[in-house]
Amino acid sequence: MTKTNLPLNADRLWADVMRLADITDPARPYTRRSFTALFLEGRAFLAKAFADAGLVTRIDAAGNLIGRIEGTDPKLGVIAIGSHSDTVPAGGRFDGIAGVATGLEIVRALRDAGIRPRHTIEIIDFLAEEPSEYGLSCVGSRGITGILDNKMLDLSGPGGEKLRDALRRVGGDPDRLDLAKRDDIRAFLELHIEQGIVLESRFLDVGVVSSIVGIRRIEIIFQGEADHAGTTPMALRHDALVAAANTVVSVRREAEQLAAEGGDYFVATVGILDVDPSGSNIVPGRCRLIIDARTTHPALTKRFVETIDRESLAHADAARVARATFATLSDGPPVACDANLRAALRQGARDLGLAETDLSSGAGHDAALMSRIAPSAMVFVPCRAGKSHAPEEWADREAIAAGAAVIYQAVRDIDQSLT
Amino acid sequence: MTKTNLPLNADRLWADVMRLADITDPARPYTRRSFTALFLEGRAFLAKAFADAGLVTRIDAAGNLIGRIEGTDPKLGVIAIGSHSDTVPAGGRFDGIAGVATGLEIVRALRDAGIRPRHTIEIIDFLAEEPSEYGLSCVGSRGITGILDNKMLDLSGPGGEKLRDALRRVGGDPDRLDLAKRDDIRAFLELHIEQGIVLESRFLDVGVVSSIVGIRRIEIIFQGEADHAGTTPMALRHDALVAAANTVVSVRREAEQLAAEGGDYFVATVGILDVDPSGSNIVPGRCRLIIDARTTHPALTKRFVETIDRESLAHADAARVARATFATLSDGPPVACDANLRAALRQGARDLGLAETDLSSGAGHDAALMSRIAPSAMVFVPCRAGKSHAPEEWADREAIAAGAAVIYQAVRDIDQSLT
Repeated sequence: MTKTNLPLNADRLWADVMRLADITDPARPYTRRSFTALFLEGRAFLAKAFADAGLVTRIDAAGNLIGRIEGTDPKLGVIAIGSHSDTVPAGGRFDGIAGVATGLEIVRALRDAGIRPRHTIEIIDFLAEEPSEYGLSCVGSRGITGILDNKMLDLSGPGGEKLRDALRRVGGDPDRLDLAKRDDIRAFLELHIEQGIVLESRFLDVGVVSSIVGIRRIEIIFQGEADHAGTTPMALRHDALVAAANTVVSVRREAEQLAAEGGDYFVATVGILDVDPSGSNIVPGRCRLIIDARTTHPALTKRFVETIDRESLAHADAARVARATFATLSDGPPVACDANLRAALRQGARDLGLAETDLSSGAGHDAALMSRIAPSAMVFVPCRAGKSHAPEEWADREAIAAGAAVIYQAVRDIDQSLT
Repeated sequence: MTKTNLPLNADRLWADVMRLADITDPARPYTRRSFTALFLEGRAFLAKAFADAGLVTRIDAAGNLIGRIEGTDPKLGVIAIGSHSDTVPAGGRFDGIAGVATGLEIVRALRDAGIRPRHTIEIIDFLAEEPSEYGLSCVGSRGITGILDNKMLDLSGPGGEKLRDALRRVGGDPDRLDLAKRDDIRAFLELHIEQGIVLESRFLDVGVVSSIVGIRRIEIIFQGEADHAGTTPMALRHDALVAAANTVVSVRREAEQLAAEGGDYFVATVGILDVDPSGSNIVPGRCRLIIDARTTHPALTKRFVETIDRESLAHADAARVARATFATLSDGPPVACDANLRAALRQGARDLGLAETDLSSGAGHDAALMSRIAPSAMVFVPCRAGKSHAPEEWADREAIAAGAAVIYQAVRDIDQSLT
């Protein structure tokens, strides 16, 4: 539905999103990669907009851009709203940006309504949420939560620059990351496009995120023998691709089964499969694949990994190849969103007459990190056909405004209830 | 077994193979790519050796190096022996070269024995049997058999050079290819390493090739949708890799079945499988694979292709992707070797006390082309562990000499019987 009586200015919010979208590599819209000159141009725009809205603006030691307005009762702590302004290469106009612009619009709307919150309000543009050129994502939210360590800071990016030097370059202080760590945030709220089709297909206005998936990445390497495709009889082959293909089939079957059990979210994907030597007349000697498994319920991933471990070994045996590697590359736990904040968001939607549902997030977000140090919750808004990380990514003006209004209502609610 | 009383000089033959092996890119043994300076250096060595053996040497219009010694009854036509002196990148010391050196040693052995054949004998070093940098293999044997056409001559290689210009550069005459075409060859014989393990595993001295496989290459492209691996539920995916992986499994199962039926040779391989976009967190949107199917019996390939056509379509449907392409890239027919020449080769082996067997060739060879214009046959010699197209490619001195002696015996036989 289209809401016309929202407690904030949908056009003003939309204009910010579009102005940020214009700050893109013109050859590859929409690209504003973290740590680049364009990224800093976007931040300069945001910093000015923050200041214009009466926020005191700074870059913290972890490179996050933070706008702050003191509450009438500062000892109550901080209500933070935010997301990120960096993009993937050739990404969209909304992923991240909509959440930052939402925070800004909420502050302006409160001011317009003459409301002075008891809690201090902060708008956070987290540094480098998307996988950066330094091989790390969520750099800023890692910093705020105290898990950005020296090993990460030593990662190298373009031209061999270390992440610690890139962080310094965008205004952070890698030597004083303890200053970025926070214990005064009482609530964190993030608006994001859904990047899926549940809301759109069910004609819903907002999703209140119940949990954010944990992501396990597994690398499997099958080592066979690269033989002549003409002279090597079928019975004498050691074909690594045959083992890999059977493993892809196992991953699909097992993921469909776990997903179909219902209740908990589960997806698994083989997105990378490399064949070596890759010649039409050569039996593949080596195959590497990466499995990405995500769930809100770790027991499902445990079952999944046990099955794939067993079956990939059997596939290797059947193809007479070695399973040289079965390694966990990363393993982030699922995160449950805060029950009180979710209740406030649901109530906000109801107050505004918006149709809402509970929803799991299949993507990682800064909110997943923030939940380590503060009660956190998220609002999803519909995006067209679920497309994201692509130029055709789209969310309607009214959809973003509705989601932002739900957070506005929740901020007003918890500013009263949270003591 | 080791034969010590062969009718030729095993050491002299071996020395030629080793001298040619030394003419290699030192950084990447053993590499002597067609049309390169190293290739011409190898040919200069061969031309001198041909001349030293009393052969009249020339380059024909198709770029083949040919040494010729007139028979006592020239109107009987030509018995040709040969193979190729070019290599794949980082190939071996024997593939092709052993066959050229064999021809040379046979001429020398006939001379040493005071035998003057009735037929004219030619030793042919075919140009560019291996896939060349111009995207074409068997350039010289195509030329001799009259199927090197203008479209092929227009193919481009390094620096944009056309194949026709490269051919001119190595002494050929692309404008007079009709001069290369032959109708006077009465028999063609080629020695080659087996590139398989049948002879070695059965402790046999030589294989008499009964037929050379036909090769069909098929390209399949599955087109799905590249979606977010976290936010796209299993039931809503259009995963191109799932269809491709199931197709690889089908290819393997069907090929094993056809091979196990016995009698006729059949192998099929997926050696290339490309995933796009190839990101660990992206559902594969597009997948391309190449199938290489080889058989001595075309009906098997027909059954195979029908099955894979049907099953790949079903796999596409099941994965909710489109099978955008199912295309035959090339389709060479199998070739039966000449029955009379095979009989002469078998008899030669028996006369020498060598253990022989009939064998299909799973690889393509110049002899397959030559069979278009002349009765042709091949002798395979054992190579270690079947390894070929690799630096560790190895055939024993005695093994090559035994195979060469079988051809020597057959040449003497057919020189008498063929009128």
